[in-house]
Amino acid sequence: MPITSQVLPASLIEQLSAIVGPDYVKTQEDDLAYYGKDWTTAVDPMPGAIVLPNSTEQVQALVKLAITHQLKVVPSGGRTGLSGGAVAFQGELVIALDRINHIQQFNEVDRSVQCGAGVITEQLQQFASEQGYYYPVNFASSGSSQLGGNISTNAGGIKVIRYGMTREWVLGMTLVTGAGDILHLGKGLYKNNTGYDLMQLFIGGEGTLGLITEITMKLTTAPKALTTLVLGIEQLEHLMPVMTRFRRDLELTAFEFFSDLALSKVVEHSQLQPPFESKALYYALIEYDQLSEAHTELALSAFEDCMEAGWVIDGVISQNEQQAANLWRLREDISETIAKWTPYKNDLSVKPSQVPAFLTAIEHYVTTAYPDFERIWFGHIGDGNLHLNILKPETLDRSTFLEKCETVTQGIFEIVATFEGSVSAEHGVGLLKKPYLQYSRSQAEIELMKALKRVFDPHLIMNPGKLFN
Amino acid sequence: MPITSQVLPASLIEQLSAIVGPDYVKTQEDDLAYYGKDWTTAVDPMPGAIVLPNSTEQVQALVKLAITHQLKVVPSGGRTGLSGGAVAFQGELVIALDRINHIQQFNEVDRSVQCGAGVITEQLQQFASEQGYYYPVNFASSGSSQLGGNISTNAGGIKVIRYGMTREWVLGMTLVTGAGDILHLGKGLYKNNTGYDLMQLFIGGEGTLGLITEITMKLTTAPKALTTLVLGIEQLEHLMPVMTRFRRDLELTAFEFFSDLALSKVVEHSQLQPPFESKALYYALIEYDQLSEAHTELALSAFEDCMEAGWVIDGVISQNEQQAANLWRLREDISETIAKWTPYKNDLSVKPSQVPAFLTAIEHYVTTAYPDFERIWFGHIGDGNLHLNILKPETLDRSTFLEKCETVTQGIFEIVATFEGSVSAEHGVGLLKKPYLQYSRSQAEIELMKALKRVFDPHLIMNPGKLFN
Repeated sequence: MPITSQVLPASLIEQLSAIVGPDYVKTQEDDLAYYGKDWTTAVDPMPGAIVLPNSTEQVQALVKLAITHQLKVVPSGGRTGLSGGAVAFQGELVIALDRINHIQQFNEVDRSVQCGAGVITEQLQQFASEQGYYYPVNFASSGSSQLGGNISTNAGGIKVIRYGMTREWVLGMTLVTGAGDILHLGKGLYKNNTGYDLMQLFIGGEGTLGLITEITMKLTTAPKALTTLVLGIEQLEHLMPVMTRFRRDLELTAFEFFSDLALSKVVEHSQLQPPFESKALYYALIEYDQLSEAHTELALSAFEDCMEAGWVIDGVISQNEQQAANLWRLREDISETIAKWTPYKNDLSVKPSQVPAFLTAIEHYVTTAYPDFERIWFGHIGDGNLHLNILKPETLDRSTFLEKCETVTQGIFEIVATFEGSVSAEHGVGLLKKPYLQYSRSQAEIELMKALKRVFDPHLIMNPGKLFN
Repeated sequence: MPITSQVLPASLIEQLSAIVGPDYVKTQEDDLAYYGKDWTTAVDPMPGAIVLPNSTEQVQALVKLAITHQLKVVPSGGRTGLSGGAVAFQGELVIALDRINHIQQFNEVDRSVQCGAGVITEQLQQFASEQGYYYPVNFASSGSSQLGGNISTNAGGIKVIRYGMTREWVLGMTLVTGAGDILHLGKGLYKNNTGYDLMQLFIGGEGTLGLITEITMKLTTAPKALTTLVLGIEQLEHLMPVMTRFRRDLELTAFEFFSDLALSKVVEHSQLQPPFESKALYYALIEYDQLSEAHTELALSAFEDCMEAGWVIDGVISQNEQQAANLWRLREDISETIAKWTPYKNDLSVKPSQVPAFLTAIEHYVTTAYPDFERIWFGHIGDGNLHLNILKPETLDRSTFLEKCETVTQGIFEIVATFEGSVSAEHGVGLLKKPYLQYSRSQAEIELMKALKRVFDPHLIMNPGKLFN
């Protein structure tokens, strides 16, 4: 049966087939729906066709064909994004990296491994672990997200306080620019000061400059014995002193935050127990690597100091891996638990020291303007990153709710701007945050970004409509 | 006495004075000579005038004036560069950052400190230490180099294996683009995924895109007790297994290399003793932070394993700070010791795993083509970074020597290219490595870099002639 498309002419479909093979051109409705959207639901997918190349050269041929036919391209990884960066909604050619998913031999001296952009995050974590090493970037969607997408959104997650964003783990990449050129950047070198580091633009570039096909990733040594504490905290202004006290003696691998409301939803909808009997308004989850017995003493002494100072009202420390995992679930299950309220999500950041004042300002604004909206707060506050989820009141219909949320968001982002914060800490801009870019980036910066795009993507075919218009 | 210039018209000097004040416009010959060059001696300095602004706004006014008069600008820091990146040789306006040298209050929660671009590296290290914290980027010229220059060359040095390049320590910067726009980038945020990270282009941009005026730098916790070993190694191929063995159990803060010839020059010209009685062809200097007694045992056990494997023939471990400092001097005094032979310097890098094969290939080439040239090898081989110094034979005059070295360099860079290495690992391109850029960057990359420059510096006034023509 010949492959047909409702959008693209038969001759074009034929040329796509000639490049990737007929088995790897998809135009059926279910494929278009599957590959045409990410974890956001804001826009209905409508790609022209899906192609699954298996090499950088095939990707280059596809991009050149797209240039010839002024066909717009959407690079597609695990599509776990939350800003609509991988949505195809205007007849685009979706280039899915699923088949470029090799993991090549690990080089222990270089601590590096060459991967296809289609490698799933968890696969790399697993591979690293098999070598006795560690890939530390970790987040809720690690089981589906692909490395190319992680890099394109500079993915962060739960270990950033210790290990940084994805940016810090990229030693090299091969990519096809929007002009159809193949570039080999970085090349696995730790030191290479020969002009502008072009690779850095593609990290967090959301596929708007070109298409990453292969990557050299860095690994590190595995932690010895991760240990987790959960502490109860009554006042926002005590959060950061607690962090500073613990960091004085211990290198923390995580400093997470959640509110009592978030905890109560998780406990209500699971078999999990609260961390301790006392109830607190806020909770901090602390993780460190227990390299020796001395570390336990340091942690307990920090805990005692925090109790004595009146910053912490209760706490618990994991005695084994299972207990640590259960404590983590109190934090990590929040997103899934509240999904049924179809929350309106915001991914904000400020400087860590500003977190308490920022949280107070936003709480004040939302409670005043929308007293009937439940807010679920959690996040990676060691990096200044807060996830604000507004739950839909049962009595409100979805479209009225969304409409109101857009207005709330304006107000929130005005507060973000006064704090010189970010309207998208780790989710990227994509389609959903595009209208708000100017709250975090100046007009001059946005004009420069547009000019940079024209340098790498002169025909404006790469992921158009994302990031900016 | 009015300020006059042999190059610039009196009206322009007057306008410069109006911006920065007459005391901060310099046109005297000794000032021009002082501010017009860096640590390279390849080009005779000939700036038009020197100005010393004290604020970002003054820098902006200067850049705007430069645009109006098509005056070329050279940003000037500590001028410790080794590639001629800060040399002014064609009547340029040198904008020296010396007066923008404030260090503002340290924020312990954010672990960040706001600095003027003119702050000297050692000042920041000292400041960090006073707060009980640590600024880990360190290199020979820390006592004179300025932060703005460090960032513009993405300075590396002796701790990169543990702490990375300068790039990893920048949380924000204020700069004036070549178009005269002030940008506030990064803003001290740890997470901010809102489009292209423009800051990354200025890191390592060598002042060709704009002029950095203020920076938010990140600090980290101070090491507890740095401990140093020097090991004797007879065969190049044993270098990296030694590193891997030590890194298995210890997080190294340095893994340095020097040859016996380098050591003998240092010992001959100082009061220092060789590290131990045995003579070896090569030496590795290892540093780690001794967080507990257990670390000493781990280091000794790694040492024993390396002896048993036949990789190491002798070794010494520091028992106190003074001993550690003396061992470090064996490595750090090399540059100064060999200065009297006016060495021809190359700053090369390959993947760490390739160091032995690369070193062998270059040795083979140089000994075959130039058997009478003494070569001094040392470097940060944990990062794949080798400094090759070719000493001038006494019998050869300087100009013949330099001429021959240029030819040797061609041969060396051809080898670098086959190893996919870097012709400038940490020194930057500037004027001196410009003719060789294509050995490390493809033509497509160079064209993209030129296009990027035009985006930020449309009038082509920022540090012209550096990096590329």
